[in-house]
Amino acid sequence: MTIPEKKHLDPARAQARREQVLDAAAVCFGRSGFHGASMAEISKTAGMSAGHIYNYFDSKDAIIAAFVERDAERIAAKLLDIGQQDDILQAMLDNVGIGVVENLDPKRWGIPLEMSAEAARNPKIALLLQDADRRSRLNLREILCKARLQRGLVTSDAELDGRVEAIIAFFEGVSLRSLKHPDLDIKSLVAACNRALKPLLFDA
Amino acid sequence: MTIPEKKHLDPARAQARREQVLDAAAVCFGRSGFHGASMAEISKTAGMSAGHIYNYFDSKDAIIAAFVERDAERIAAKLLDIGQQDDILQAMLDNVGIGVVENLDPKRWGIPLEMSAEAARNPKIALLLQDADRRSRLNLREILCKARLQRGLVTSDAELDGRVEAIIAFFEGVSLRSLKHPDLDIKSLVAACNRALKPLLFDA
Repeated sequence: MTIPEKKHLDPARAQARREQVLDAAAVCFGRSGFHGASMAEISKTAGMSAGHIYNYFDSKDAIIAAFVERDAERIAAKLLDIGQQDDILQAMLDNVGIGVVENLDPKRWGIPLEMSAEAARNPKIALLLQDADRRSRLNLREILCKARLQRGLVTSDAELDGRVEAIIAFFEGVSLRSLKHPDLDIKSLVAACNRALKPLLFDA
Repeated sequence: MTIPEKKHLDPARAQARREQVLDAAAVCFGRSGFHGASMAEISKTAGMSAGHIYNYFDSKDAIIAAFVERDAERIAAKLLDIGQQDDILQAMLDNVGIGVVENLDPKRWGIPLEMSAEAARNPKIALLLQDADRRSRLNLREILCKARLQRGLVTSDAELDGRVEAIIAFFEGVSLRSLKHPDLDIKSLVAACNRALKPLLFDA
């Protein structure tokens, strides 16, 4: 319950416990919203004592920060993988469909949507999201730049910035489609997304 | 305060009062979130008695429904205008920049974002959003179909559905960009959006 105790935790076990808290928090935020869910409710859902949970997270804000970080790491891992392909530009296009389908999954967008709504009125959360976004878009920008150079396409900084913004906007907007039109035709949407993203990737 | 009294209200005055309540609700939702804002806080912000506000809205859900409706009407008016142009497809493309700039404005996306987060856990609000979305996308679909026929482009139903979904995803995603990257380069983003949307509008 005290700070020295934190240091005694086995790292793998601590990581597993942190994941346990995050999973419980996802359930509680989904049920009651960020404001409605209390640390007591989260610890109960995680099957921990109210005191125990503070070994892993100081506050609800710290839990949100961990969600944001987890999401940023997932995107970074995906981009790292794509960036190692032989033909990066083609790999990016080939991954559009997978990305669209993933982003339509409520398990993927529920918490980020809650975070975004919270960020609109909570400057601390806004800064967290903005920092994670900055890292993700610089990462995507670097890979897009490298991918285009592979094909001899030299692109101005402003041009790259705009394309990266538009690509991210697309994927984030797709998540909202699944909320507002749950039975949309995924195949048609994927075809249209390919059609729209191709020029952002390949156009001179 | 009673139902018969509602009937005595002058329609223009009643409409002005409804707008007054909606403006106050927007302030309160922005400050406290949908859950945090009470009808008492909204009536106070609107400068009305707590009883008076119920002449116009029965509940917070009714206020949300009015927001959703107002947004749907705004989109319908915009589409009606575009649909009356000589070259509709070109008019749609010409309006991309205006639409992007409008969707970057926090005044435009703050409330819809709050509604979407609420819809993720409140089936009544989800149904409201889904119904408004259905009307907007059928409207956009009809105009896109007409626009393409003007140019001799015949498009299958599934193809039209996919393009409409992707166009809406784009604009909704743009709003989130302004939350996560407030100082983005608007000119570059508009150029990239034009590049991505052009094939969705014009491709055979």
